[in-house]
This record gives sequence, C-alpha cells and structure tokens, in this order.
Amino acid sequence: MSTEDQELPVFTTAADMRAWVRKQKKSGRKVALVPTMGYLHEGHLSLVKAAKEKADVVVASIYVNPTQFAAHEDFDVYPRNPAEDRDKLAAAGCHAVFEPDSLYVSVPGADGESSNVVGRESGHPGSHETFVTVERLQRPLCGGSRPHFFRGVCTVVTKLFHICEPDVAVFGRKDYQQWRVICRMVRDLDFPVEVVGMPICREPDGLAMSSRNARLSPESRERALCISRGLAWAEKAVAEGAVSEPADVAAQLRGRIEEAGGTVDYVELLHAHHLSPISDLTSQPVLLAVAAHFPARDRGTTHAANGHGSKNSQSV
Amino acid sequence: MSTEDQELPVFTTAADMRAWVRKQKKSGRKVALVPTMGYLHEGHLSLVKAAKEKADVVVASIYVNPTQFAAHEDFDVYPRNPAEDRDKLAAAGCHAVFEPDSLYVSVPGADGESSNVVGRESGHPGSHETFVTVERLQRPLCGGSRPHFFRGVCTVVTKLFHICEPDVAVFGRKDYQQWRVICRMVRDLDFPVEVVGMPICREPDGLAMSSRNARLSPESRERALCISRGLAWAEKAVAEGAVSEPADVAAQLRGRIEEAGGTVDYVELLHAHHLSPISDLTSQPVLLAVAAHFPARDRGTTHAANGHGSKNSQSV
Repeated sequence: MSTEDQELPVFTTAADMRAWVRKQKKSGRKVALVPTMGYLHEGHLSLVKAAKEKADVVVASIYVNPTQFAAHEDFDVYPRNPAEDRDKLAAAGCHAVFEPDSLYVSVPGADGESSNVVGRESGHPGSHETFVTVERLQRPLCGGSRPHFFRGVCTVVTKLFHICEPDVAVFGRKDYQQWRVICRMVRDLDFPVEVVGMPICREPDGLAMSSRNARLSPESRERALCISRGLAWAEKAVAEGAVSEPADVAAQLRGRIEEAGGTVDYVELLHAHHLSPISDLTSQPVLLAVAAHFPARDRGTTHAANGHGSKNSQSV
Repeated sequence: MSTEDQELPVFTTAADMRAWVRKQKKSGRKVALVPTMGYLHEGHLSLVKAAKEKADVVVASIYVNPTQFAAHEDFDVYPRNPAEDRDKLAAAGCHAVFEPDSLYVSVPGADGESSNVVGRESGHPGSHETFVTVERLQRPLCGGSRPHFFRGVCTVVTKLFHICEPDVAVFGRKDYQQWRVICRMVRDLDFPVEVVGMPICREPDGLAMSSRNARLSPESRERALCISRGLAWAEKAVAEGAVSEPADVAAQLRGRIEEAGGTVDYVELLHAHHLSPISDLTSQPVLLAVAAHFPARDRGTTHAANGHGSKNSQSV
C-alpha cells in the first residue's frame, strides 16, 4: 500500500515499492538503496547523504530482520521508532521509504503456530526456506558468536535488492564484516548493484554511533569509550613501532577493554579483504576489529540477560 | 565479447549479455530466459517455443555448471556440442545465446592450482564462496544421492537471473524437483521473475528426452522404457483403484524397474508442491517421481563406473 499523498512516500509491500522504483528508472533516474533496521542516527543519515551523491533518488528501507537474530538475541527489544525515522529521512532528503511488515512467507502449521523468527527451520513445508550464505567470510569475528547472523543478513539484503532493484547500495563500515560479506555476495552472485561502504560515524567523544547504544546504561556508555580509545592507541602504537606483533596488539587492546568492565566478544587483526589470519602488520591491508558487551539499562528484562548487554563493535 | 555480426548473437561475458538485455527492455520488450546445459534436444526446444509465447525476446543460456556436480559425477563427460546447439536455437527462433566460459571467480592458490569444480570450498580466500540454498525442498529425491546438487542449481540460476534479468524463465518439468526448488527460491527471495514449468517431452516410444540419454547403450536405451511404461501403469492402476496405498505403488514400480535391469535411485510418491511424505493418494496433489540408472555406453571410461550409468528420471 502506498501513501504517496504524504511528502515522503512510504511503501509497505514489495509490489508497490518495486513499481515506484521501476517508474523512477523508466524516467532515467539512478536509484540508491540504504538498508537499515531503523532507530536512525547520524551514521545512517550520512549513508543517505552519500547515496544522494551516487544516485538521483534514494530509497531507505526500515526493517528489523528476524532471520539475523538467534532465539536468545535482542530481536524483541531492538529499539524501534518508525515515525521519528521517517521524519529524519524526509529531512535528510530521502525520496522513498520501504517499511514492510514482514518479508518472509510464514505458513502457520496445523496448530496455528507460526514463528516470528524464521532463521531456523519451522513448521510448515510451505514456509520460507531459502537462504544465501557467504561461506568463508561469515565465519570469523561476529560469525563466531552469531553463526546464523550473516546468512540472515545476506538473505534479507538479497530480498531488498530484488524488491528495490537499486543501482547502488550504501552500507556503513561500522559493520565492517557485513560490508565485506555483502561485497563478496554481490560479486559472487553477479548482482547488478554497486556496493558503497562509508566510514564509521562517531559521537563527539569517539564512541561509534549505533542504534544499540540506546540500550547502554549511562555508566556503560562512559566505559564503552575504551573501545575507540583503544583503537586510537593501537593505531598510534603500530605506527610508532611500539608494538609490531598482531597478537600483542590484540592482547593489549583486550586488556584495556576488560579493565574498563567490558566483556570482549573478539579483538582480532585480520586481512582486511579476506578476513583471514595474518602473521605480520606490514605485508597486507590489516583490519583491527573489536566487539565487546557492556551492561544494558534494561538487562533485567531482555534476552541479553547472561551478563552481557548492548554491544559496541568498531573497526579501523 | 559479442558476435552480433552472426545471425544469432552469442555473448560470452556477463557485461555484454546484460547490456544486450537492457537494450531490449529499454525498447519495451519482455525478456524470457531458457537456462540449459547444452546438448539440446526437442525438450529444450519446446521450452524455447513456450518462452516465445510468454515474451518478446528469448535468451537461451548454455553452461555446464560445475557447482551442481560432485567430484565423482559426470561433469567431464557431460555431452557437449555448442556449435550444433547454436544452430538449433537459431532455427527455433531464439534471439540471443549466453555461453560463458566460466561463471565463477576462481583465484589460484600459491601453488597455482585452481579447481574447475567449485562446489566444494577450495583454496584461495578470494575465490567464489556464495551459495543459495532451498533448505527443505532440496533434501528428498535427487537430494538424497546428490546433497550439493540443488545448492549448485540455485546458485547458478541466481547468477543467470542477475545477468540476464529475465521477466520470465522457462524450465522443464522432467526435472520436477528442480522446477519446484526454483519456484520456491524465486518466491522466497522476491526475484522479479515469472517461472514457467513445461511438461516432459517424450520420444515416440515414451522415453523422457534427456541429454544424458546419449550416454545410454542401445540395450540400456531399450530397457529404460520400463520407467515410462511403469509410470503409465501406476497412473492407470491408481485411477482404476487396483492399488490405493502410496507404498504399494512405489514397491511395484520399483520391482518393474529392477526386473528390467535398472538400478533404482528412488521411486517415491510425495506431496506435489512441498515434496513432503503423503499417507494417501486422494487428499492432496501427488507426485510420483522415479530416477534409475542404466549402464552407459562409455561406462569403462567415465566417472559413472560404479555399476551405474546414465540416468533417466521421470515424474508424473
């Protein structure tokens, strides 16, 4: 259903969204897509800005994708604010919003049950069952603790690409591995889409912007600064030759985060393109990737109740 | 590289193929794709004919897809005859042919080795590594003996769809499970493609047409008729009420094929859409699917040397 009488058209079905994009393309306009899960911050809006420079019209999608959450993860408490998101997108000069209720066919079983999270196989043989997997790049870093995460990301991005048919798609490099995985998927499956990766946007004090930051307690918000500070330290220490072994960089950075009260998911130095292990810091492009958890303000009532909370991951 | 000076344009790169299709679409023409592995017979040409009725221009692809063959299977001896194929397609009124050398990025490792068959993970972290999987529908029937087959089919069809950007794609229902898997993939991933499944084409004596029939010995060619005859028997027996249990139909048909010297891969009665088990023959659409091997004329020198040979599978 389209609501084109509004200033910013908002489409909730694939058919309406595709029809709008095709009309744009027929008029010779180049189309860019900015896929998001909503709860937008300056980082997202910087992607819209970049998209406007790459194309004539910009579509932003807002969809919290169930297939990239595991059952114990924070799908239910993922922050949502669609009305404010639409205002922000309109102000940023976005041209259309795709905001579907659901993107997955879910056929209720005989008992009428239907799972919201379709990442794992469920019930009825008529339900969604097709997935796109980037087999190697999905494994390290976030793939370690979230084995189905990138399968969910690739699957929903494939669907969004097929619905919105963009010429260009813009992703943030805060989610560095996601950006690399999408680039590989686009290359391997011959998607006719140019993928653009934009730099991390940071708060004035250095924290990488993230929708999940909203779930950090005030104290955690302060403590999480150890990540950006640690990355700055590592960059300087390597440049000055104070540390030269990848393992030493990782161990020292991990120590700093744990000292600040963070629970480290990973601190790793990898080949920046292939995300494969490296033995030195000089002979190839190097990624230093960090993900850590800090207590959430709502830890008592969320799925993230196992001592972890919101996560802030950053890469240089 | 295009060879548009020929009557039938033949494209060997994704970029040239896509450019040609986009030009057609810009002129308002509807595009159909007929994906094939070449060595064309009347069955393929019936798909071209159907495609012409559904669209303004028809592209046929000829590509023996390595990712759908396992290492022990017949990739190396799969029959090929591209020159004759092109003549047949021109005569059938096809408008363009996509005939790529390779569709997969394969980066040689440090030892210079690069595998032709990229279905399994190989060497270099820069090589192809993205696959599309229809998780449930791929499992029964052919999936039992060929666990990676449909993953390879879905991956190459995704690539062909992205390169040729068809409005319509036409498949043969001889490969019934493949047709159902593709339909599900298209639905689940929101491909903007209409999938059309055409009936089996049969030789005058009833054998389903198949490129692999060329590998049957004359004796096997005769014996393989037990399949089409068995299917006709089953249809009649069920219609007349002579057999009413799915398991009885399967057991009797299996017996007929084994008696004729065939090695049965499967004889199964399943739900025709979901390929799930059924308990009776009346309450839902039923598929009777058969695959059997018969000795090949070249059995001594092929990968199919384990007592099996060319396969002829048929469904009603």
